[in-house]
Amino acid sequence: MAKELKELTKRADNYSQWYNDLVVKADLAEQSAVRGCMVIKPYGYAIWEKMQHQLDLMFKETGAQNAYFPLLIPKSFLSREAEHVEGFAKECAVVTHYRLRAKEDKSGVEVDPAARLEEELIIRPTSETIIWNTYKNWIHSWRDLPLMCNQWCNVMRWEMRTRPFLRTSEFLWQEGHTAHATREEAEAEAQKMLHVYADFAEQWMAVPVVQGVKSETERFAGALDTYTIEAMMQDGKALQSGTSHFLGQNFAKAFDVTYLNKENKPEYVWATSWGVSTRLIGALIMTHSDDNGLVLPPKLAPIQVVIIPITKGAEQLQAITEKLSPIITALRNAGISVKYDDADNKRPGFKFADYELKGVPVRLVMGGRDLENNTLEIMRRDTLEKETVPVDGIVERVENLLKEIQDNMFKKAKAYRDAHIYECDNYDEFKEKVKEGGFFLCHWDGTAETEAKIKEETQATIRCVPFGVEQTPGTDMVSGKPAKCRVIIARSY
Amino acid sequence: MAKELKELTKRADNYSQWYNDLVVKADLAEQSAVRGCMVIKPYGYAIWEKMQHQLDLMFKETGAQNAYFPLLIPKSFLSREAEHVEGFAKECAVVTHYRLRAKEDKSGVEVDPAARLEEELIIRPTSETIIWNTYKNWIHSWRDLPLMCNQWCNVMRWEMRTRPFLRTSEFLWQEGHTAHATREEAEAEAQKMLHVYADFAEQWMAVPVVQGVKSETERFAGALDTYTIEAMMQDGKALQSGTSHFLGQNFAKAFDVTYLNKENKPEYVWATSWGVSTRLIGALIMTHSDDNGLVLPPKLAPIQVVIIPITKGAEQLQAITEKLSPIITALRNAGISVKYDDADNKRPGFKFADYELKGVPVRLVMGGRDLENNTLEIMRRDTLEKETVPVDGIVERVENLLKEIQDNMFKKAKAYRDAHIYECDNYDEFKEKVKEGGFFLCHWDGTAETEAKIKEETQATIRCVPFGVEQTPGTDMVSGKPAKCRVIIARSY
Repeated sequence: MAKELKELTKRADNYSQWYNDLVVKADLAEQSAVRGCMVIKPYGYAIWEKMQHQLDLMFKETGAQNAYFPLLIPKSFLSREAEHVEGFAKECAVVTHYRLRAKEDKSGVEVDPAARLEEELIIRPTSETIIWNTYKNWIHSWRDLPLMCNQWCNVMRWEMRTRPFLRTSEFLWQEGHTAHATREEAEAEAQKMLHVYADFAEQWMAVPVVQGVKSETERFAGALDTYTIEAMMQDGKALQSGTSHFLGQNFAKAFDVTYLNKENKPEYVWATSWGVSTRLIGALIMTHSDDNGLVLPPKLAPIQVVIIPITKGAEQLQAITEKLSPIITALRNAGISVKYDDADNKRPGFKFADYELKGVPVRLVMGGRDLENNTLEIMRRDTLEKETVPVDGIVERVENLLKEIQDNMFKKAKAYRDAHIYECDNYDEFKEKVKEGGFFLCHWDGTAETEAKIKEETQATIRCVPFGVEQTPGTDMVSGKPAKCRVIIARSY
Repeated sequence: MAKELKELTKRADNYSQWYNDLVVKADLAEQSAVRGCMVIKPYGYAIWEKMQHQLDLMFKETGAQNAYFPLLIPKSFLSREAEHVEGFAKECAVVTHYRLRAKEDKSGVEVDPAARLEEELIIRPTSETIIWNTYKNWIHSWRDLPLMCNQWCNVMRWEMRTRPFLRTSEFLWQEGHTAHATREEAEAEAQKMLHVYADFAEQWMAVPVVQGVKSETERFAGALDTYTIEAMMQDGKALQSGTSHFLGQNFAKAFDVTYLNKENKPEYVWATSWGVSTRLIGALIMTHSDDNGLVLPPKLAPIQVVIIPITKGAEQLQAITEKLSPIITALRNAGISVKYDDADNKRPGFKFADYELKGVPVRLVMGGRDLENNTLEIMRRDTLEKETVPVDGIVERVENLLKEIQDNMFKKAKAYRDAHIYECDNYDEFKEKVKEGGFFLCHWDGTAETEAKIKEETQATIRCVPFGVEQTPGTDMVSGKPAKCRVIIARSY
């Protein structure tokens, strides 16, 4: 049977290796010839397309419009916002020339020194600077506000240690950039988009998330506040899965973007930005998948149902295909994506393992006996439970099962997550327990010193001050100083 | 009334300036701070999204799957295919460093000389090289073929003279890259995709195109054959609107991509690539639009119907809005995109001009008298004809009108195009007439010398050997040598 299965590392043996194996074996992505950049293969990209489609609808419902801004950013733009340049100049791809020429010995091409740019250009690590430089021309009066643009694009950060989807030099994402007349409106927008991300994560990805606000240290470079959704992976580590930033007037001031208010007086514009990336695919994998491979939530699975005939000879195959044909049509008419795999060069056992590896939520099998009995074998990927069911009513049964799988995956992930959130008031206990993973709700004195000490001694970081948690003041477990509230501390990706 | 209208240059006065004006005034795009790179504004991007959506469906129907390959290409990859490097090395953005650092005087940032890349990276001008380097790992046996991937992405070519949509340093496009077991299959694929492009241009953009094959001089760098769709703009110039390349085994050989055939013998793979870009928006503009602004085909218009109330006072506005509300709902339920513009800070005349400028296909207006009479004024953008019609049956009327506009726009463009295609056998006559624009069907001796002479003396180029034209041998009008067939010669964008 399936070679792939045997080769997939077990999670218990090496979680990190299991992840890397799975990404490649399930045909999601692979390393490219360019350091730290991945190729997203068709199956992986199909998941991203489903994510994009749904997120795009949700963004547009909030009034955002898509647009496109240049890939390259003049070097000087980065410097305009002091924290921004600090955060992004250290890891960026720099374009210095605009031409190659043949080498004298004809052995290849080399940079043409005559084609040096007057000012170097940076491949966007994020687009606040170029967008706010553009918004300057678009915003004149309060009637031009709010302005809400989103772009789907590639960005580049020169990461030293990369892992597919989780951290790559180039990645795909969306970045929303909004401009508002008032502080209140901008703050509300940043929080609204955080809720959109949380809804998407929970309802579409079946990934439960904690919403919260980052500490000052962990803020986006140039933001006054960074809101985050934090998901817990199966190894108990946190994965920051989406962020939404309240940028105050920092970029408006850096690029001199003012508007005339209703009293005809100029005021600086208030800003937000928000983004999620192909990192979400990493979150999807590490929340749900198992030692057999991917487990995909039905709402984002490129193939929702695979149908496999098991036959002896061409005659029986024809009879089974005839029987299945109206079922396939009916499922597709119900909006379900179906793959019928009657390829004759792979054994059923190989196919079973392969579709398990790829996380197809529902598998239907029809063999000779099923044909006689007017039945099908139905298997759900999340629990691997099998059942023989009548052909009659199969569409409704599959529809219900897809919903049930979606619900079950969320419940299971949430139960796991909730069982690994701990209140902790003792630093020694924390240091021991944090090695095993989990989210730790601890009182924090609010200082960067304590934060740095925790990070240095435990590799754990303050993920956020969580929303929706009843907070009481207490004592910082590290410094012993008074603390206003508990934060979530965890090791993270 | 509308300032914009007065400022839009007339086509007859300066066609080129009219185009540049219109792109900006209709909110499609604008120059960015980066040389030769444009910002695609929300309204322009919405057109691109509609194009993408339809093209993506059409590609997937042919069996192509989307994927994503790296933005950056190692310099050495370009050199592997001799013609390819020749064609693209001269105009590419080169990444040489991966870090900036603060200047000593703190006045900004500069390239960190310690962060020089061992091998420079090129921002993809097209992705054959990186993709074929990847395909090497994906293709082993005949069972892996055909392999058909497409990617939607940005590319960069360092153009010296740029114009929005028509020629920009960065542009958005799709590039399909397919791998086949046989020459015949690859050639058929290249032609099939050309037909897909032609169908899209004619049925969705309402832009008639000539399909044909390029001369050797005009081929894509690395192709054995380049197929093209050529559209005629209102000034008689040709716009190459999409190309599909039969690449032979050039890239398979350059990147050593072989497969085991059914006899278990290794053979080089056959390739195609095909692409269309945001240039299509330029084709759309210059085929249909007029001195009042854009004229958009209903199938690609972001707003298909705008509804404007003309009222005296809030009470009447409320009555009219109540009357219109079920109409708006009914139109939307019929799948029509509707904008209801009851903004009180712009006069109706300004709105009329603005939606004409933006090319909205159908305008509905309701005033006080309409309210009394249960009527609406309906205007079609393509002919500017107005009519007063009953509210009853308005949805069906609008649906029919949208179809009629789509048809009419194609017919009108085709009639114009056909009236400007000339058979020409006399070079002196050609030299005179080509100044006025148009497509010239001329016998060509097949030599690059004649082609170069025509280009030098008239700035016109051989656009293609057209398909579907009855061909008879004849005499080359320039050289007097025998010619197998007529080609299309025109000045072009």
